Amino acid sequence: MNEALKEAKKSYKNGDVPVGAIIVKNNKIIAKAHNEKEKKRNAIKHAEIIAIEKACKKLKSWHLEECELYVTLEPCLMCAGALLQSRIKTLIYATENEKFGYVKSIESILNNGKNNHKIKIISGIGREESQYLLKEFFKEKRN
Amino acid sequence: MNEALKEAKKSYKNGDVPVGAIIVKNNKIIAKAHNEKEKKRNAIKHAEIIAIEKACKKLKSWHLEECELYVTLEPCLMCAGALLQSRIKTLIYATENEKFGYVKSIESILNNGKNNHKIKIISGIGREESQYLLKEFFKEKRN
Repeated sequence: MNEALKEAKKSYKNGDVPVGAIIVKNNKIIAKAHNEKEKKRNAIKHAEIIAIEKACKKLKSWHLEECELYVTLEPCLMCAGALLQSRIKTLIYATENEKFGYVKSIESILNNGKNNHKIKIISGIGREESQYLLKEFFKEKRN
Repeated sequence: MNEALKEAKKSYKNGDVPVGAIIVKNNKIIAKAHNEKEKKRNAIKHAEIIAIEKACKKLKSWHLEECELYVTLEPCLMCAGALLQSRIKTLIYATENEKFGYVKSIESILNNGKNNHKIKIISGIGREESQYLLKEFFKEKRN
């Protein structure tokens, strides 16, 4: 999660909401990404999406069954769907997203028994660090 | 929708589930795309996602508030989320996706009152043509 937090700081510097993600396979990092929605002026460029695209490219496959995705913020609806599409094995997120999180906060969309893939979910690792980054970012933005 | 169906046929030829999407602004097509998940070996490359990325690039903005997305198949969870992220005004889809559709079939995720954006939804235009393409594709695949 430290590597994901480092990625999140890159988004911060670019004026994007600080969110970072990494993908791990066999204890090795195979993809790193950070939120670039504002920088790239592109609605799709969330950290998780970019990380999944990089991992697919690296593995030359859209199947990420043996991979874990670490992200500093609870995924939104789009990114929760992308985790299903890529068949990620495990999702580890740092802190909840009360407004847009579709893993637990708004709805537990991944565990509703209606999808063709099941993802193991772990949360809370790096929560304080991620919350601090997000709070500082929005405080600066308001000023 | 005819243009979206033409796009779907391109996926068919590539061995990808035939789904096509176009984005329209002020009665002009600004993006065309087709499903390239298998071709690109990339879990993210659904027609809707590629179309949204192209439209953002064209408009130099992630805001697609004045745009309509036409797609030949009901969007999945990821693509429904992408429509919210890009603030698309209207979604027009041809036929339902009983297994993976998150606009109506599995769950009406866009109309649950829990999102920060509301999308107008129209369905059924080009339904027969889209169903025919999908049926032929899966029939060929089984043989």
